[in-house]
Amino acid sequence: MLSPEDNELLTSIGPGTPMGNLLRRFWLPGLLVAELPAPDCAPVRLRLLGEDLVAFCDSNGEIGILDAYCPHRRAHLYYGRNEECGLRCVYHGWKFNVAGQCIDMPSEPPETDFKQKIKLKSYSTVVRGNVIWVYMGPTDVMPEPPDFEWSFLPSNQRTSIKRLQQCNWAQAVEGGVDASHVSFLHSQISGEARLNFGRKMLNVMTDDRHPIFHTEETDYGILIGARRNIGEDNFYWRFTQCLLPFYNMIPPGLLEGDTDTRTAPYAGHAWVPIDDENTWTWSFSASPSEAFNDELMDLQGGKNGMWGPVDDDYKPLYNQSNDFGLDRENQRSITYTGIQGIPNQDAAVQESMGPIVDRSKEHLGTSDTAVIAWRKRLLKMVKQLEKGIEPSEAANHDSYNVRSVSMISTRDADWRKEIKKLMVGLAPEQRPPEKL
Amino acid sequence: MLSPEDNELLTSIGPGTPMGNLLRRFWLPGLLVAELPAPDCAPVRLRLLGEDLVAFCDSNGEIGILDAYCPHRRAHLYYGRNEECGLRCVYHGWKFNVAGQCIDMPSEPPETDFKQKIKLKSYSTVVRGNVIWVYMGPTDVMPEPPDFEWSFLPSNQRTSIKRLQQCNWAQAVEGGVDASHVSFLHSQISGEARLNFGRKMLNVMTDDRHPIFHTEETDYGILIGARRNIGEDNFYWRFTQCLLPFYNMIPPGLLEGDTDTRTAPYAGHAWVPIDDENTWTWSFSASPSEAFNDELMDLQGGKNGMWGPVDDDYKPLYNQSNDFGLDRENQRSITYTGIQGIPNQDAAVQESMGPIVDRSKEHLGTSDTAVIAWRKRLLKMVKQLEKGIEPSEAANHDSYNVRSVSMISTRDADWRKEIKKLMVGLAPEQRPPEKL
Amino acid sequence: MLSPEDNELLTSIGPGTPMGNLLRRFWLPGLLVAELPAPDCAPVRLRLLGEDLVAFCDSNGEIGILDAYCPHRRAHLYYGRNEECGLRCVYHGWKFNVAGQCIDMPSEPPETDFKQKIKLKSYSTVVRGNVIWVYMGPTDVMPEPPDFEWSFLPSNQRTSIKRLQQCNWAQAVEGGVDASHVSFLHSQISGEARLNFGRKMLNVMTDDRHPIFHTEETDYGILIGARRNIGEDNFYWRFTQCLLPFYNMIPPGLLEGDTDTRTAPYAGHAWVPIDDENTWTWSFSASPSEAFNDELMDLQGGKNGMWGPVDDDYKPLYNQSNDFGLDRENQRSITYTGIQGIPNQDAAVQESMGPIVDRSKEHLGTSDTAVIAWRKRLLKMVKQLEKGIEPSEAANHDSYNVRSVSMISTRDADWRKEIKKLMVGLAPEQRPPEKL
Repeated sequence: MLSPEDNELLTSIGPGTPMGNLLRRFWLPGLLVAELPAPDCAPVRLRLLGEDLVAFCDSNGEIGILDAYCPHRRAHLYYGRNEECGLRCVYHGWKFNVAGQCIDMPSEPPETDFKQKIKLKSYSTVVRGNVIWVYMGPTDVMPEPPDFEWSFLPSNQRTSIKRLQQCNWAQAVEGGVDASHVSFLHSQISGEARLNFGRKMLNVMTDDRHPIFHTEETDYGILIGARRNIGEDNFYWRFTQCLLPFYNMIPPGLLEGDTDTRTAPYAGHAWVPIDDENTWTWSFSASPSEAFNDELMDLQGGKNGMWGPVDDDYKPLYNQSNDFGLDRENQRSITYTGIQGIPNQDAAVQESMGPIVDRSKEHLGTSDTAVIAWRKRLLKMVKQLEKGIEPSEAANHDSYNVRSVSMISTRDADWRKEIKKLMVGLAPEQRPPEKL
Repeated sequence: MLSPEDNELLTSIGPGTPMGNLLRRFWLPGLLVAELPAPDCAPVRLRLLGEDLVAFCDSNGEIGILDAYCPHRRAHLYYGRNEECGLRCVYHGWKFNVAGQCIDMPSEPPETDFKQKIKLKSYSTVVRGNVIWVYMGPTDVMPEPPDFEWSFLPSNQRTSIKRLQQCNWAQAVEGGVDASHVSFLHSQISGEARLNFGRKMLNVMTDDRHPIFHTEETDYGILIGARRNIGEDNFYWRFTQCLLPFYNMIPPGLLEGDTDTRTAPYAGHAWVPIDDENTWTWSFSASPSEAFNDELMDLQGGKNGMWGPVDDDYKPLYNQSNDFGLDRENQRSITYTGIQGIPNQDAAVQESMGPIVDRSKEHLGTSDTAVIAWRKRLLKMVKQLEKGIEPSEAANHDSYNVRSVSMISTRDADWRKEIKKLMVGLAPEQRPPEKL
Repeated sequence: MLSPEDNELLTSIGPGTPMGNLLRRFWLPGLLVAELPAPDCAPVRLRLLGEDLVAFCDSNGEIGILDAYCPHRRAHLYYGRNEECGLRCVYHGWKFNVAGQCIDMPSEPPETDFKQKIKLKSYSTVVRGNVIWVYMGPTDVMPEPPDFEWSFLPSNQRTSIKRLQQCNWAQAVEGGVDASHVSFLHSQISGEARLNFGRKMLNVMTDDRHPIFHTEETDYGILIGARRNIGEDNFYWRFTQCLLPFYNMIPPGLLEGDTDTRTAPYAGHAWVPIDDENTWTWSFSASPSEAFNDELMDLQGGKNGMWGPVDDDYKPLYNQSNDFGLDRENQRSITYTGIQGIPNQDAAVQESMGPIVDRSKEHLGTSDTAVIAWRKRLLKMVKQLEKGIEPSEAANHDSYNVRSVSMISTRDADWRKEIKKLMVGLAPEQRPPEKL
């Protein structure tokens, strides 16, 4: 439960809001590289943290993310001409480079040209792992982008895809850090769920539906362990990293016969606010030790794969307008929800709360331990930033190089010691050179 | 004409509003039984008096009407699983019985289970005459449901159907109690209107278009008599009951040769607020002395009958988006409006006023006598309730057992004495046993 | 740049606003005559300056423009019956003549009839040049309608058409008075633009893209001259009249070999506020010396002509929902925008600013001279009216009889003297009798 004031603090992310200020200290996944596929391609509209932006790839392949509106008379630059190292407004021909500098003002005669004085708001970008990252905060405190292992893997060992979610970012993140719901929302009444790359997995999640949660504060955020009983002597652990401000890492299911998922493919999400009532839900996956085959690439990263189906604008085909494809007959006998697909199941419950859930009306239990820890950490960071204390997490970029894992341990094992060593990604010197 | 303050008082029905408090003293028609056709069927969304609710029929056939949002993390229970005597949220499996009590909390281990402490808002229901009635008020003043004759007739002697109306409830009720508009809005330029079951009726309504209105305050609300001249010696009376807070009864047309409609089928409406700008328009009919044949059952109670056509969600196919099917050629020569169907004609004018009509800009005449009487009575009740005086009408459930009639009387007859005896429904002891 | 206060002053036009008061001093183009094609035809909805109205043509061919809502119970008169010299509400049959006087009240018996006391708000109209003009201001200061030459030409020498624009009127007018954008927004990358009736024109607009602007205050508003260099010795002038409050006149392109466009067809626009966020964009054309052929009539005045395509409600088929038909491939190689049609190009940039552009964020240059002059003049008029000084421009109806022209002059010519004589329309005594 949160007070209405804290709920407002947590959920409002527009320019000038406390949470908006905090999120602007972090790099954000902004666009898929596929959305700006080539130099001088069509510019795209982009809305992040309540700001209307335009993105383009110039003749040199440099990415520009600018205020959407031409500073002359405020026409939208989406309609602009992307040509010869700049984006040109079609209203009067003013042209801007990726840094936002006006570099041509053809509507003015030479003697009154004032292009040097015109600079459009522009944001820094970096390309890593199919994703164009954006930094929208003060340049003097700009950190390095987060050092996710997956973003440095060869392109056939990683995938990225996004989808529109029509609710506030925080209730989406909370769905991600909440490991408890998996045993219900994503479970099967009969048959097998294809949760993890279609392979035969240990079926413990629905056998013990009330795991014990352990959380540990870390440099990057919160490490969450969900412990289930397995047999008389062992625990089944699933470790999830909640990386601030809005990421989570999903451990692979444990294959029968194995005791940990050290090198298995893992996945992750980011929930990036479009505005207070809309969110981009990003899904990543990484196979640190071997290439995905084509089928798995499509499954993990395609518009019709496991995070879809989405249309050309990344809007889900199953959404509020069709009850997310709810099929009551299927719900009775096959899946727990009657809704196909993990992301559609998540979106259904998260969007069903309304655009911004009223957390003053909740009743939380021990299953919400991780949710509570995330909120608490985030509210603390917001309140500190309001006092002038910058969030150290944003600068801890190399601590983000983690893998999520599942494992079986004996009941007396020291999990903090045993498992943590499995959770580290490749060190920078071990990584292959980055490929776009 | 109302002051802006009284207009607000009359039209605002959300939780905590004075009119909302008053309406919560009455039983409301909530759902058609057909919407919850069997034990463990799919739950349905329901919005009444500005509250989001979910309705379900449990394994024992008991109806539950609960707050729509799970008290755990506020997922909508519409997506829930209706199984084994309870509705289960698909997010984390919490389960609620028809009384709103949490009866299972599988996401918590036994030692932290707190299901006994969790009770969801729930409302009392009763099933009568194809309708699931709901009581949303304080339990200590809960009355008996209204004792409508039609709700106790055998199922082949009654019908019920509803349709969405996209305006405030009060302007819909006012259309119902306003007997004057029938001579215009529902009239024909040429040919015969099929107002009443397709039978040959006395055509007096359009011959005398400005009836004299008599109103009488009663236990259930207001009895409205519209008196038209017929020949030199007689009056043609149509009596309509306005039953508080939002019902009206429609008398049958008088068949040629008869002098009253004592045992003929009659109809009625209820206008139940969904929220301030949307209303369920209910239509009932009753044939107290003989069964309807199949054609009349469909005509009175079908989705494509005289109160339709509506789609599967009871939304009219003729609506604002298509000007209610307005056909100017038809308007010129056949019907007064050019719109087909009484309910579509009513909806056209009532919705055309805007979602909430501004009654400070009206100019009322003697034809509005009943409208004025209804408002006055209702505003009086609201103001009394604000002082702590409960509305006696809500408790007068047996006074609701009335029939509406048409009749011819001599001009010197004492109508209050003559006709009132025709207007009483079957006494409870005369009624056949209720069938759902 | 405008302060937020002046921006609000410029853009808010509802009843009671300062700009709303000012615009109500001028006659407005209200409807095409084709929308009310015959006596007793179907009434139409009309929204102007934020007021909901209904327009009808009575049995005598008189036009009535009335408050949309019946004063009895506020049903919308659009659903009304237009018959026997009046518009009759279908709810209770009240009937109004074109002056708004209630002339029948059939729902009341004779002894309580009060129709003489009921008068609906009505506005004066006049028909000129295919257009029904409306005056919505105080009757004691009602001027003559503007004396546009085109509105008196024979019907085969003029055209009128309108289209919906989904933004504030002021940013639309500013697009019209801004002669600078033509060299960009409406230009071609390759091939010829068909700007002016398909004839071979002097191609100077894109050769000199930063004309020098001269403005002159006049009785009707502002005369704007855009001067481009042509060869060593000459100037190419395009003169545009900005006629207050919201008209502009577009000069024809100069044909090769000619030195002025004295008798060539010219065009004009009006931007009439529907409400603060919607505008009717009117397009007129006039051929003062000879008839348009059928093809040109369709091109200038048809729904699928150069100001379209529009649907039966005059809504453009290319609009925000489809990015105005933007074709990036075409943008790369053929047209500057990739959008077909001048009005679609204008609408794209003007609507892309949002419903009401924030002028506090602009950066204006010398190319915006005319825009600045228009705003300044209009804000001056608004502020004067607030002090009680009526706008003299509204009364200068005969000064509106102007033509826009293009011409070539030597660089030392006195343009104010040379050209002004070309810009006068036919004097009233020279005009043929008006035909509808």
